Amino acid sequence: MIGGFHGKILKVDLSTGTIKTLELSEEMAKSFVGGSGLAAALLYDILTRDLDPLSPDSPLLFITGSFTGSKVPSSSRYAICAKSPLTGLWGESTAGGHFPASLKLSGYDGILFVGRSSKPVYLFVHNGEAEIKDASDLWGLTTYETQEAIRDELGRDVKVASIGPAGENMVKFAAVINDEGKAAGRTGMGAVMGSKNLKAVAVYGNMEPPIADPKTFSELLPKAIAEIESNPTTHMSRLYGTLDYVAAGMSYGDVPTKYYQDSIFPAYKLNGKALREKYYVKPIACTGCPIACGKEIEFGKYGLEKADTLEYETAAAFGPLCGIDDLDALIYINYLCNAYGMDTISAGASVAFAMNAYEKGKLTKEKLGGLEAKWGDKDVAIELVHMIANRKSIGGILAEGTKVAASKLGIEDGEVAVVKGLEIPMHDPRAFSMQALTYATSTRGACHMRPDYFTVEIGQEIPELGIRQTDRFASNPEKVESFIKFQNVREVYDSLILCKFSANSLTTISKFYSAITGVKVEPKEFNVLGERIYNIKRSINLRLGMRKEDEKLPKIILRSIKRGGTQGNVPNIEEMLRHYYAMRKIDPVTGKPMKEKLEELGLLKQAKDLWG
Amino acid sequence: MIGGFHGKILKVDLSTGTIKTLELSEEMAKSFVGGSGLAAALLYDILTRDLDPLSPDSPLLFITGSFTGSKVPSSSRYAICAKSPLTGLWGESTAGGHFPASLKLSGYDGILFVGRSSKPVYLFVHNGEAEIKDASDLWGLTTYETQEAIRDELGRDVKVASIGPAGENMVKFAAVINDEGKAAGRTGMGAVMGSKNLKAVAVYGNMEPPIADPKTFSELLPKAIAEIESNPTTHMSRLYGTLDYVAAGMSYGDVPTKYYQDSIFPAYKLNGKALREKYYVKPIACTGCPIACGKEIEFGKYGLEKADTLEYETAAAFGPLCGIDDLDALIYINYLCNAYGMDTISAGASVAFAMNAYEKGKLTKEKLGGLEAKWGDKDVAIELVHMIANRKSIGGILAEGTKVAASKLGIEDGEVAVVKGLEIPMHDPRAFSMQALTYATSTRGACHMRPDYFTVEIGQEIPELGIRQTDRFASNPEKVESFIKFQNVREVYDSLILCKFSANSLTTISKFYSAITGVKVEPKEFNVLGERIYNIKRSINLRLGMRKEDEKLPKIILRSIKRGGTQGNVPNIEEMLRHYYAMRKIDPVTGKPMKEKLEELGLLKQAKDLWG
Repeated sequence: MIGGFHGKILKVDLSTGTIKTLELSEEMAKSFVGGSGLAAALLYDILTRDLDPLSPDSPLLFITGSFTGSKVPSSSRYAICAKSPLTGLWGESTAGGHFPASLKLSGYDGILFVGRSSKPVYLFVHNGEAEIKDASDLWGLTTYETQEAIRDELGRDVKVASIGPAGENMVKFAAVINDEGKAAGRTGMGAVMGSKNLKAVAVYGNMEPPIADPKTFSELLPKAIAEIESNPTTHMSRLYGTLDYVAAGMSYGDVPTKYYQDSIFPAYKLNGKALREKYYVKPIACTGCPIACGKEIEFGKYGLEKADTLEYETAAAFGPLCGIDDLDALIYINYLCNAYGMDTISAGASVAFAMNAYEKGKLTKEKLGGLEAKWGDKDVAIELVHMIANRKSIGGILAEGTKVAASKLGIEDGEVAVVKGLEIPMHDPRAFSMQALTYATSTRGACHMRPDYFTVEIGQEIPELGIRQTDRFASNPEKVESFIKFQNVREVYDSLILCKFSANSLTTISKFYSAITGVKVEPKEFNVLGERIYNIKRSINLRLGMRKEDEKLPKIILRSIKRGGTQGNVPNIEEMLRHYYAMRKIDPVTGKPMKEKLEELGLLKQAKDLWG
Repeated sequence: MIGGFHGKILKVDLSTGTIKTLELSEEMAKSFVGGSGLAAALLYDILTRDLDPLSPDSPLLFITGSFTGSKVPSSSRYAICAKSPLTGLWGESTAGGHFPASLKLSGYDGILFVGRSSKPVYLFVHNGEAEIKDASDLWGLTTYETQEAIRDELGRDVKVASIGPAGENMVKFAAVINDEGKAAGRTGMGAVMGSKNLKAVAVYGNMEPPIADPKTFSELLPKAIAEIESNPTTHMSRLYGTLDYVAAGMSYGDVPTKYYQDSIFPAYKLNGKALREKYYVKPIACTGCPIACGKEIEFGKYGLEKADTLEYETAAAFGPLCGIDDLDALIYINYLCNAYGMDTISAGASVAFAMNAYEKGKLTKEKLGGLEAKWGDKDVAIELVHMIANRKSIGGILAEGTKVAASKLGIEDGEVAVVKGLEIPMHDPRAFSMQALTYATSTRGACHMRPDYFTVEIGQEIPELGIRQTDRFASNPEKVESFIKFQNVREVYDSLILCKFSANSLTTISKFYSAITGVKVEPKEFNVLGERIYNIKRSINLRLGMRKEDEKLPKIILRSIKRGGTQGNVPNIEEMLRHYYAMRKIDPVTGKPMKEKLEELGLLKQAKDLWG
């Protein structure tokens, strides 16, 4: 086995209670890097079109990469992968914190869950041992309470990832929460856990996987840390976290407002500076991360003593998107979502969707269980969060995701801000044209991070691959080419697994990879590795029923906004897709990667399955 | 006298060689704050329409404020004020470094020069003593050489501000340079020095002016420094300096390219990161400044061992504006401009103007002294810098400023990027609409800092005055109201004198002011103080012949740019001016501040002079 891996995946059958160890093949770890890339390869055969994501047959994989648990800065991350109950397509979500590193150090590269327990359970893995434990007393608890209860029982060194009531109730966008409100948020992995009666996973250990070239690794580490310290975004993140983006985002017209129909709001009430001025803010770092972009706040409101950081996505989703500008309410809503275990992007978009429907007369007070869902009403937003998590009244409909909710409420498709069933996050493609291509082509629906091309447009380039900032409104072939490389690289990040806020260059990252695994790579090779991962995930989606026609953006996000930083820009998604399909060698009729491309990438099985 | 002042202005008659001390009245220091505000009040009577700025009668004032020479962070700045030979209107320019603090500690609040020496001289002021010294041997030297020669003679503790050959040759945008290439760049103050045969001013001393409330001051200082450290722009500035703005600037469409006709260029070749990757960069701080945004580079090219920092304005003026993307060449050009003593904004705009004229067939190779002034030709740019500084060939015409040059070359007014005779700096009003109002109404022509409203649009707000970020393309009355307050406050900055990159809040600054001077002010009062200063400077300009019609932008910067971050926006300058005149109580026909407004501000003489 290459370095950075134990070479072992734990397989837990929750129906029978049997636990065994699967060998991980070296070839697979080399070809698919680790993390969600490896997960796609491991799950490929099991994920079929007929599979109900919430059935016992549905597999759920907790997975790490060769970086996880190492001293590589910003690498304590794991991914959870399954067929998404929200989108019916490839589901994956990653989170940082301490749990990921501890998961790796517990002695396994990942945990594959199958089956369904007859009663609530949780899994405890410690230094190569694993046991299924009763969770009857934990069922119904919030994620914070669950974590505390398990750590009180098993010890404070144990790290916990769990679902809350939203996952138990199989809210389609339920999240898995670990440590200080770290969320594996998107695509409803919490609902899959809930469907298995799996309340939590607790991990502990000190079993470090081997490093191929420890000497080079040790020499590299201080240089990498110096590189991080010399990157000014590090200081920005350390002070403000992602909330720093609120002001810049508005100046670009990048912060969707009032359900994607405006872009101006009082940014100063919600930004990182406002948070620091109002509260004592303590930086929180994931294991081994020198950046510490997370924050804990001394809060003292809404019955809370302290609260987790308010990330940009959350602040924007429940803030401007709902017309809410009350920082305290947003902190509390974030707490509620974390406690219930719900993705704040989909949840915020759901609340904004309801408010928009109410304001437009398409959703009445009666249907809303008596709520008058006016723009900006924080109490309504709080109430809707409770209702969704507990599937009460309108909450039961919204808990299915806005695509299904719209269909149930008679709201036309184009007025729902989803792509492939996933709610659109808080970066407006009208502000950064390539973000439209991101939403259309990401392997998990409207994901803003695969790739987060807007970061390139504001100057965070990857010179090793010639990915350079140009005109943020342009969508010419050169940019699409650049986009594809960046999309490939981001797939590798999710496979290493490395945080996308890593402040290291791709050169440094490739050196780390070479030193840990013993597989020498140059930065450019990440492009090919990522291309393979992208294509296997795309192949999964096609097998699961994704059609070429699904790669489009809804009308609501393609209407020109007459004020704000987009200055009326609307991205030309058709043009971008045309270039994209041609360059990726995707059949523009079916959306299938061409057989030659799949074969060139060594995806022989996928080539056969898609093309016969 | 209030604290922060010696109460003494040195008056040097260079024609007669007499030196005397003028008393500074407490009333004047209170009413006009100090710095350029005080200068306007002191020079008001002398600056007449008939005065030739380069005649012996023309006064030249080096001035400091109550903050200068104190421990207030970012306060080692001075201003030079005179009638501008470039614009014929109010001229002022400020610079940082060590010279300003030393000027104050030399025992005087300022130095007023009149007359003209029959031979080259320089002034040495040290601890209350002043002497005129022969500069015959220094004439013809670069500013770097002049500084070294004087410090070699008088001691390394002596700080020097001098002109170079450009000032001697009375290039209309000649600068005064002190310390490490710190430039009092704009409006041609170097030409005024040259016209007086005044090569340099050397200062030294340890005479601190009194502080009214030293205890409060001492308590405030560490808090102010903590405030600076908690401001993330501090770290950005420390790492990259102003060059950091290149990437963000392009994403906003804010970096004028090819003589204000485009906005896309390879930003990555010119930004702060590129500089740090190519060279060893040492931070350089002005006296007492914890930010240290200045840089010194180990260069080793073009015959130089080291070079001064490349500021954003310089990089943009000679870079994108001329279509040049060679970082080394830009560093060398910056060195040349500093050595010759020329404003890099006006010089860069002049070179771009010539290239644009050449490319459009309006300036031939012959007229250009054999140069083919194509976009992007760095050698042409270098040659033109030499030619302008030495007034050779086309350089003699360009040395008059682009307004005069255009008139001589038969290029129509609207195609020259100047306002009131001053070349437009490197922030595009199509990217930030209010910047159009800045250029139209600044007290010194197209100045980007009075106010730098684009900083508000990207989130650097002044909450104390309700100055908040909104839509950067908007130009509604609320924004104009906010703009006027910010313009007033920036006038106060130039009067304290405080660097506009100060990372302290207005509240902290007002506390400093109260502690130093003993005059209690609240942040809001800065608005009124600034209003008075703005209006006296405006009154001077009106007396000097400024007409309401001069407050307009040239066509070339009001044409929609079809690509890049402005997304085609064109600011509605007429609308903004209409609101502006109404809110400032300016007569929209004559451009004169209404009599009642002037009287309300205590500007009784100005009221009488303008209205009879």
